[in-house]
Amino acid sequence: MISNKMKSLVANNSIIRAMFEEGKRLSEIYGEENVFDYSIGNPNVEPPSKVKEVIFEILNEETPNLVHGYMNNSGYDDVRTNISNFINRKHNLTLSKDNIVMTCGAAGGLNIILKSILNPDDEVITFSPYFGEYGNYVKNFDGKLVTCPTNIETFEPDLKALSEVITPRTKALIINNPNNPTGVIYSEKIIKHLATLLNNKQEEFNTSIYLISDEPYREIVYDDIEVPCILKYYDNTFIGYSYSKSLSLPGERIGYVVANSSMADFTDMMASLNIATRILGFVNAPSLFQRVIAKSLDAEVDVNIYKKNRDLLYNHLISLGFTCVKPQGAFYLFPKSPIDDDKKFCEDAKQFNLLLVPGSSFGCPGHVRLAYCTSYEKIEKSLPAFDKLASLYNLK
Amino acid sequence: MISNKMKSLVANNSIIRAMFEEGKRLSEIYGEENVFDYSIGNPNVEPPSKVKEVIFEILNEETPNLVHGYMNNSGYDDVRTNISNFINRKHNLTLSKDNIVMTCGAAGGLNIILKSILNPDDEVITFSPYFGEYGNYVKNFDGKLVTCPTNIETFEPDLKALSEVITPRTKALIINNPNNPTGVIYSEKIIKHLATLLNNKQEEFNTSIYLISDEPYREIVYDDIEVPCILKYYDNTFIGYSYSKSLSLPGERIGYVVANSSMADFTDMMASLNIATRILGFVNAPSLFQRVIAKSLDAEVDVNIYKKNRDLLYNHLISLGFTCVKPQGAFYLFPKSPIDDDKKFCEDAKQFNLLLVPGSSFGCPGHVRLAYCTSYEKIEKSLPAFDKLASLYNLK
Repeated sequence: MISNKMKSLVANNSIIRAMFEEGKRLSEIYGEENVFDYSIGNPNVEPPSKVKEVIFEILNEETPNLVHGYMNNSGYDDVRTNISNFINRKHNLTLSKDNIVMTCGAAGGLNIILKSILNPDDEVITFSPYFGEYGNYVKNFDGKLVTCPTNIETFEPDLKALSEVITPRTKALIINNPNNPTGVIYSEKIIKHLATLLNNKQEEFNTSIYLISDEPYREIVYDDIEVPCILKYYDNTFIGYSYSKSLSLPGERIGYVVANSSMADFTDMMASLNIATRILGFVNAPSLFQRVIAKSLDAEVDVNIYKKNRDLLYNHLISLGFTCVKPQGAFYLFPKSPIDDDKKFCEDAKQFNLLLVPGSSFGCPGHVRLAYCTSYEKIEKSLPAFDKLASLYNLK
Repeated sequence: MISNKMKSLVANNSIIRAMFEEGKRLSEIYGEENVFDYSIGNPNVEPPSKVKEVIFEILNEETPNLVHGYMNNSGYDDVRTNISNFINRKHNLTLSKDNIVMTCGAAGGLNIILKSILNPDDEVITFSPYFGEYGNYVKNFDGKLVTCPTNIETFEPDLKALSEVITPRTKALIINNPNNPTGVIYSEKIIKHLATLLNNKQEEFNTSIYLISDEPYREIVYDDIEVPCILKYYDNTFIGYSYSKSLSLPGERIGYVVANSSMADFTDMMASLNIATRILGFVNAPSLFQRVIAKSLDAEVDVNIYKKNRDLLYNHLISLGFTCVKPQGAFYLFPKSPIDDDKKFCEDAKQFNLLLVPGSSFGCPGHVRLAYCTSYEKIEKSLPAFDKLASLYNLK
């Protein structure tokens, strides 16, 4: 008696989650210390100590019914003002609280955006490989996800391919910058090219095409590379942000959506985001953590921990003969599978207690994803397992 | 460029919220102390002190990445176990964690249930007056809300009327017990009658009809009246619960769904709720507050504060000649408007700085809702305004 839309999802429950359960099973057999779970993006780096300090401060100083009560569905005014000021300082912009809606993480943010813009059968484009949930989010509102290949050597957008998939039904392009699963960051030059192409297509079709940038990894960047702020380059722009990674608070479901004032129908769109937050059942982003965020804007997790992990694992895989784009951000590696069948490769890896996710889950078969948001010691300990896996395929 | 579904919602933005803004406007003119805002169900009673103590305890004793990290989308196992044990003790049941999904409040809970059961054009029945958001929640999944009148003298379900609106397309009946906006509690006898009727209709049409009980006010009850636990009386039953009122934590968005093991396709249904939580963008109920709840199950707000408010306001309105069912639970009064046009009555009330919500917003014109979750002193101060309002209509 389950709805038809849910039936297929129940049947093909997320491979990532199944892997999570498999990890638990293997741990019970071999001991947790001997299972190398690279399957899930659950940050291992601790939240900054400031988060705890700020929670204590708020609970000791602020009125309980205000801290835990209802506010405007878009979030507390002062929280949204603090966040807009923070973004303004960082990117030299002139946002106000009216550009911001507090959300239940980036996932909540993407859903209120899509609820606000999609009519049935509208098309939403994303570049593959892509975060698999985009397909579900788009289907929630009867839209159609259209995938567009990237340059397979660099995982950067293929503008010619993009130009070919944009149609009069295209309502949005979702980018994920830095990217999950590749770790690639789109440069200012790429963003400018995307903006030009989208502007031309809007004119050609006399439509509005929204650029939605999903940015939960914005602060997880290495080697002093900067993530460009898309608000500067294109009018019809939304950013979905989350503190899941930048403050290691994924379970708390706290983030925001920011929309460009120069967007078509900006005022109505912000009202729509506000109402969508309410009627989709979020009602508002969790209240205590809204207040925590407003007081922790300068706090950051120690990204060097992830960088050391990246370097250790990336260098080892390369030394074993794997092919992999070196990630500039996020905490994933996306190497090529030595065989075309990435699912078989992941099955093979399990015999060495290595849990990897097939690239097929990200619309990019022939690759696998490794989430290296785990401890350095664990990665060190896992290296011999990769040696065995590589020798299984006679790499090098 | 807003989606068609959202356009009408943006145009007719919630009257309750508009009232909220009106309250702010009047407060700026007349001073907050002279505006009597009975429009919004934002609890004024403080959360139990235990909530704060437990937060400190968790942050001092538990591992930060576990407290703030991802868990199973249905929620932490130990939290769900604690909650199921608590319900078992209270109602002599045999639930386990597998019957529970932690949700972003009851609103999140209702949405994952409806996502899991509704196909386009399925019908969902509710009794009027009803919480206006039900219509939006059902529309999120392309269902159709069908309203069924209650006995206008008691606001109890009219079983004959219900029998007539159930069709082969009926997928669910949503009840709200205790009821917002009337404060009425459905007795065990009523629940048994509902169960018998639904069972008969299931047999007649060879369908499954789910009974969804929305119970955020379960603990806000007066005069030792008990809210029956519907799990005992009907197989295809879901309860949507929230700690918004019982612990005065509405902004934190924490609650759960419990489903009956005897439900059709129980295992698949629980998997569907789990996946719906993920793909609708909730991902999981906020993690810290899941852990707080598990340690605060015995805590309660002081319901006597609401009871005193109820008595003061109810007795005064009756003394002025208003007609009103005496609420047994929740924190709302739903008196008859002295004129048929409830919207005009609410407009008239504004001249005395009284903010009330028209019954039309609850599918029941000719009445108004007053949320008395405000301070006793404020209610006392507002009584002369009601006197003036009554004399405007020559009541008594």
